[in-house]
Amino acid sequence: MALSIGFVLFPGVTQLDFTGPLQVLSAMPDTTCHIVAASLDPVETDTALRLIPTTTFATCPPLDVICVPGGGGVAAALVDGALIGFVKDRGEQAKWVTSVCTGAFILGRAGLLRNRRAATHWAYRDLLPLVGALPSVARVARDGNVVTGGGVTAGIDFALMLAGEIAGPGVAQGIQLGLEYDPSPPFDAGSPKFAPEPVRERLEARYVERRQRMQQAIESPPKL
Amino acid sequence: MALSIGFVLFPGVTQLDFTGPLQVLSAMPDTTCHIVAASLDPVETDTALRLIPTTTFATCPPLDVICVPGGGGVAAALVDGALIGFVKDRGEQAKWVTSVCTGAFILGRAGLLRNRRAATHWAYRDLLPLVGALPSVARVARDGNVVTGGGVTAGIDFALMLAGEIAGPGVAQGIQLGLEYDPSPPFDAGSPKFAPEPVRERLEARYVERRQRMQQAIESPPKL
Repeated sequence: MALSIGFVLFPGVTQLDFTGPLQVLSAMPDTTCHIVAASLDPVETDTALRLIPTTTFATCPPLDVICVPGGGGVAAALVDGALIGFVKDRGEQAKWVTSVCTGAFILGRAGLLRNRRAATHWAYRDLLPLVGALPSVARVARDGNVVTGGGVTAGIDFALMLAGEIAGPGVAQGIQLGLEYDPSPPFDAGSPKFAPEPVRERLEARYVERRQRMQQAIESPPKL
Repeated sequence: MALSIGFVLFPGVTQLDFTGPLQVLSAMPDTTCHIVAASLDPVETDTALRLIPTTTFATCPPLDVICVPGGGGVAAALVDGALIGFVKDRGEQAKWVTSVCTGAFILGRAGLLRNRRAATHWAYRDLLPLVGALPSVARVARDGNVVTGGGVTAGIDFALMLAGEIAGPGVAQGIQLGLEYDPSPPFDAGSPKFAPEPVRERLEARYVERRQRMQQAIESPPKL
C-alpha cells in the first residue's frame, strides 16, 4: 500500500514550510501526499499564494506521516480545537510525527513533543519548553519517530533526511539530484550565529510581538 | 510605487521552482507578487498541490520583474502561443527578466535569451543553444538584466541574489535570516559532479525521454 503523507494547513501558514517538503516527499516512490485543512476552501498564506487542500480533517485517510508547517498563523492555530484535535489524533497513530519551523508548537500543543528533542525557527527556540519539548539547535532534530526541522528552508533538509529514513539513502540522493539541491546562498546570513549584527537585531526586533502572540496562545486553552 | 513581480504559471510546473522564489521575493519591502496564468483556474503542478493564479495574461498589471519557473510542463508551454506571447511582451518591458530551472527555455523561446549566458537544470543545460542562449554552469547566472537559476532549489539562491540587486544586500540578508537559510543537506548528491554514479545514471536514464520531448517542442512552432 502507498505511503500516506498528510500536510496540515491553516490560515497564515508560511507556504515554503510546506511546499519545500512537499516537493521532496512527493518524489518518493509509491507515495500519496494529502493536503489537509478544516475545509476544502483555499487557505491564505503569508504570500499571494492561496493553497488548495485535497482533503479535510473530517475526510482525511489514515496517515503514515503527519507534517505540520509553521508561520505567523501558528498562534491562532494553537487555540483551534479542531486542528489541534486532528493533529493529536493522527499524530498518535502515525509512524512519523513531523514539523517544520514553528509547526513544532502545534505538535507540542497536541501533546506529541513531551520530553522530545525538537527543532524550530531560531527566534522561537527558547519557547519550546512551554509545550513540553527539549529545544535542539540542530537544523533537523530526530528523536524516535519525531522529526522536526528548523526555520522555513530547513524543511528541505528535513524532508531529504526523512526520505532517506523511509525510502533509503539512494532514493533520497536521487531526489536531491533531481532537485539540484547543491545550495549556494549568495550571502552568509542564514543563522543568527553569523548574520551581520544589524541584520540580526532588526530581525529580533520584528519577532518581539510575534513571540508574545505565540506565548499568549500557548497559555490559552484550545477552543472547540 | 510598489515593485511588481509576475510569476508565470502553466500546467505541469514544478511548484518549488515558483514557491521558493515567491517566499523570498514576497519578503522584499513594498513589493506585490502576481501569480499569472492563462485563466484564474487552478494550475496543476508536479505534486498534489494546485496553484491559484491571482491574475491572467489578459489582465496582469505592468511587471518590473518577470519570473518563469520550469518543470515537466515546459515542453507543452513552448508551443503555447498565448503564454509565449505574454512572456515575450512583458519580458521586453520588464526591468528584470528571470527564470528558474527549465523556465529558461520559455524565456529563450520568447526571444529573451539571445546570446545571453543562462543557467538551467543540469540535465537540460546542453540544450540551451537551441533557444539561442549560452549555457552557464553557474547556480545563478546574471547577464545584464537577465538572471536565471539552475534546477528547482536554485530558485532560492536566485531569489536572494535578485533581492540583493533590487533591494540591497542588507534586505536580502534579513530575508535569508528570517527564512533561516543556512542549508545543510543530509547527503552530498545535489550536483551530477559529485552525486554517486549509480544515482546519477538512474536520473540520466529518467531524463532521456523528457529531453526528447523538450527538443521536439523547441523545434515546433508555437500554436496560437
